[in-house]
Amino acid sequence: MSKSRQEIFKTQLQHAREGTITPRMVAVARDEGLDPELIMAELAAGRLIIPSNKNHLGAHPIGIGVATRCKVNANLGTSPSTIDPQMEVRKARLAVELGADTIMDLSTGGDLPGIRGSIMKGSNVVLGTVPIYEAASGVESVVELGVEDLLSVVERQARDGVDYMTIHAALLADHVALTHDRMAGIVSRGGSLMACWTAFHSEENPFYSNFDRLLDICRRHDVSLSLGDGLRPGCLADAGDSAQMAELEVMGHLVERCWDAGVQVMVEGPGHVPLDQVRWQVQRAAELCHGAPFYVLGPIVTDLAPGYDHITSAIGGAVAAWSGASMLCYVTPSEHLGLPRLDDVRKGVVAARIAAHAGDIARGRSGARQADDAISIARRKFDWDTQFRLCLDPHTARSVRTQQGTVDDNEHCCTMCGPNLCAVKLTDDLNESTGRAAG
Amino acid sequence: MSKSRQEIFKTQLQHAREGTITPRMVAVARDEGLDPELIMAELAAGRLIIPSNKNHLGAHPIGIGVATRCKVNANLGTSPSTIDPQMEVRKARLAVELGADTIMDLSTGGDLPGIRGSIMKGSNVVLGTVPIYEAASGVESVVELGVEDLLSVVERQARDGVDYMTIHAALLADHVALTHDRMAGIVSRGGSLMACWTAFHSEENPFYSNFDRLLDICRRHDVSLSLGDGLRPGCLADAGDSAQMAELEVMGHLVERCWDAGVQVMVEGPGHVPLDQVRWQVQRAAELCHGAPFYVLGPIVTDLAPGYDHITSAIGGAVAAWSGASMLCYVTPSEHLGLPRLDDVRKGVVAARIAAHAGDIARGRSGARQADDAISIARRKFDWDTQFRLCLDPHTARSVRTQQGTVDDNEHCCTMCGPNLCAVKLTDDLNESTGRAAG
Repeated sequence: MSKSRQEIFKTQLQHAREGTITPRMVAVARDEGLDPELIMAELAAGRLIIPSNKNHLGAHPIGIGVATRCKVNANLGTSPSTIDPQMEVRKARLAVELGADTIMDLSTGGDLPGIRGSIMKGSNVVLGTVPIYEAASGVESVVELGVEDLLSVVERQARDGVDYMTIHAALLADHVALTHDRMAGIVSRGGSLMACWTAFHSEENPFYSNFDRLLDICRRHDVSLSLGDGLRPGCLADAGDSAQMAELEVMGHLVERCWDAGVQVMVEGPGHVPLDQVRWQVQRAAELCHGAPFYVLGPIVTDLAPGYDHITSAIGGAVAAWSGASMLCYVTPSEHLGLPRLDDVRKGVVAARIAAHAGDIARGRSGARQADDAISIARRKFDWDTQFRLCLDPHTARSVRTQQGTVDDNEHCCTMCGPNLCAVKLTDDLNESTGRAAG
Repeated sequence: MSKSRQEIFKTQLQHAREGTITPRMVAVARDEGLDPELIMAELAAGRLIIPSNKNHLGAHPIGIGVATRCKVNANLGTSPSTIDPQMEVRKARLAVELGADTIMDLSTGGDLPGIRGSIMKGSNVVLGTVPIYEAASGVESVVELGVEDLLSVVERQARDGVDYMTIHAALLADHVALTHDRMAGIVSRGGSLMACWTAFHSEENPFYSNFDRLLDICRRHDVSLSLGDGLRPGCLADAGDSAQMAELEVMGHLVERCWDAGVQVMVEGPGHVPLDQVRWQVQRAAELCHGAPFYVLGPIVTDLAPGYDHITSAIGGAVAAWSGASMLCYVTPSEHLGLPRLDDVRKGVVAARIAAHAGDIARGRSGARQADDAISIARRKFDWDTQFRLCLDPHTARSVRTQQGTVDDNEHCCTMCGPNLCAVKLTDDLNESTGRAAG
């Protein structure tokens, strides 16, 4: 690429600030049923991002921000003990089929660039990564890495087309002491790596010290930064503690530096949070981070249910979405227990979509309840086909119904009440007898 | 029973009003870690019930009210097309094993008294029913039943030891017209039966007209009334409509009549409710029903997820519990699709317990977070045995972990990150290197 073309290239944020409505903004506006002018204005204000690495052609553009539908991300990827690239591609396809808006490839085992490429080819959605994983995977210990090693991984992933990257740049060396009295310590993988690095080298977090260089890479490729919360609480007892809040404050400063550099940015959030603290956490993040989109992992509202953390996080995620979170990272039933399998991906994506959708409805987002109304009308008419077509997971819904008995799709009942004690049927009969037809 | 003994018998409410602390109140106080005086005072105020039919010996007494831990009920029972009494007993045992506080036997197919007896023998928890189901099961149409038929079923079930009964006494003949413009109509089985009855006979709801006779039966056996919400919304669009609110207002009057008669009473609530309306609904019910315990079915916060309504209801249930609901009725993955199977019971009970527990924590209930803290400490120590012992469903949690790979319980990692990139392990190493031991 010639220098002049490099100089001409602008991020979506820079375009928006100059008053240019790009094709991606138009596409997002159309998907969301919103005015392109609004999308541009929200982008310009930093309240919305459209992650769109210029090298990732064919990715379906999405808007992540408080003005748009709450999005869902699905994490997947290999681990050192479980390397099956084709399975990761299958997980990605299933996640997208079920409505995941983005995929994060968190692979840490095997040929990482190759796996990432397969996932990008196998799905058409926005892709995120955590570059420190790739950097750390190549060495015995993260402390062996220098600044150039870290930035060169970021640069390479940017060239490969990664749309957004989680960078734990706000975890400062001084913050680590704040975690010493914690019940769960540091539970973020990236956070613990940065903490080890700063302690070993007695230096500041290299992503923080070299933040301008990081921003330069992001601006040149329009990589959106996702500021990782390395000190997110790992249990209810640690939620909202001084370590978490200290990092969040630094995130706020980094958001401003991103904006100054024309780089799109969002902020990552917890984690494990009691239900009564979720709204406060979302609002506090919005205040300290100047309204940058907030992307939460969960939050999980009890520590007591390993095997069911897709549910504990759906509760927290729904309230977070309602309170203003812009994207939910799914949590699967295998959280705290192991790497998610294919069926875990299914359960995780659907649970997160339920939460995001419940939040959209609660916010009174225009049109959010349309599909609910359509399915409710179909339910009253015993129109099983329409119910299955419209619901979040047709495969599962249909198989539950068929497994329960011999009822066919034309039957005006299910095995719950049978034909004689079905409330819907009784009401229809009543309405017919009084001369009123059903919906 | 001689007349004098009948006269001496008192309900828990009557005892409480007279300042007597009964053995059941003591047992509840001990379970909850509360003062028996408080239990008595809450009972006397009507804000707490201890369902305890004098004929149901051996049932573990529980308190349902805003002062005590949020409870979970599991519905089960046959339907005309699926009759397997032994399976229903297995479901009851599994539900209790997983922490259900009460069982409702909603059987509508087979030998109903026999099935109910087996379930009561097979579990030691408080049992609820909906007597209109048994009454309607014996005839071609509910309209064939007279007042005496209805009350005799109630009397028989009371003699058999049923601890609480759902009676749809607040659905008045005039309310039915309010449902004509609804999207989902009447979705309560009992509600639709009462609506049919009143329309056919052009008479008032017989349970309303004969409420004093109903109260007499309840008082003589200390059956707690659970005022059924026959007009609960069956889709988001119908939530909080005039039909629902009209019935709720009548419920408020009936609560006062129960209290006047010395009968314990709780109020049933929705249903399908958008997340932003849940707190308002719980608070409105508390106002109109003078603080009587509120027992919710769900609420489900989106209509879009058949096959996953244990999750849609866990979201609504958690916020309801936080807002003051005293008991959650579980909803299983087969809701809207068919009769729950054994595995559905498992998922339904655990999801409801997650919601109830998240609500207890959010309310700041004393000691609610203790188990969460204990499991978090165990998690940090890689003490898998303790994690599995303390969690809500040890069987599922353990099987998820073992299915994911070859890790054993002594290993200080899981397949998610492997041994080299585990945040907890990295943090421990860091703390060791700086001379700090883990939690």
